[in-house]
Amino acid sequence: MKTTVTWNQKMQFTATDEAGNTTPMDAQPEHGGEGHGPTPKQLVLEGLAGCTAMDVIAILNKMRSPPVALRVEASTEMTETHPKVFTAIHLRYVVKGDVPVDKLEKAIKMSQDTYCGVSAMLRKAAPITWEYAFE
Amino acid sequence: MKTTVTWNQKMQFTATDEAGNTTPMDAQPEHGGEGHGPTPKQLVLEGLAGCTAMDVIAILNKMRSPPVALRVEASTEMTETHPKVFTAIHLRYVVKGDVPVDKLEKAIKMSQDTYCGVSAMLRKAAPITWEYAFE
Repeated sequence: MKTTVTWNQKMQFTATDEAGNTTPMDAQPEHGGEGHGPTPKQLVLEGLAGCTAMDVIAILNKMRSPPVALRVEASTEMTETHPKVFTAIHLRYVVKGDVPVDKLEKAIKMSQDTYCGVSAMLRKAAPITWEYAFE
Repeated sequence: MKTTVTWNQKMQFTATDEAGNTTPMDAQPEHGGEGHGPTPKQLVLEGLAGCTAMDVIAILNKMRSPPVALRVEASTEMTETHPKVFTAIHLRYVVKGDVPVDKLEKAIKMSQDTYCGVSAMLRKAAPITWEYAFE
């Protein structure tokens, strides 16, 4: 996998992946950022939530129990000193639709235990806990 | 830090951070993706490259040796089996401008050793190597 991150100006950067997709980034306001995109660490957390969300959709589709709606809320605790790293990560899967609880639990476990590469990598840095809710 | 990743349709998702910035994501084509954004794992790699790129700009600014241009090219080796994780990460800092080599090296080392939280986390999953080039 490859990516290129190019400096634009101030603390603004643009990432370009191999397919040509571009993603803006900016620093936090206290580090000179001006809100022109998520921070790099935000992108990492978004990648984690997206990775497992995709797994859950794909697995529930295979189980013939797709949800009507799904979102994954991710939250972290972090160190106060450099390097600022996640010390705990929590994922909350919020599902809408007629998805049996046992299938949802199995899908989440399969993602966290077997399929989600981002979870597998970040779990080496911080514990990942999860819960789910229907709404 | 918080983020929410919401399923749109097919394998397309949108991440929304606390400041309201949105980032699209899509799966790889072989997993049903249609190119509507980077993959989650791409975002993680982009976050890594962006994190250290921001550090290097900020440190070179403090050293009164800002570059004219900077990009960070990131590449990985990955496992073939699930969970697909990075097994090696390489960063190439490409600099344009009158930046003394010793200052550039020091800035990169300070980022990798002290400041870049994403590097500190991902290094627990895979070794990170780096080089630099002027152009």
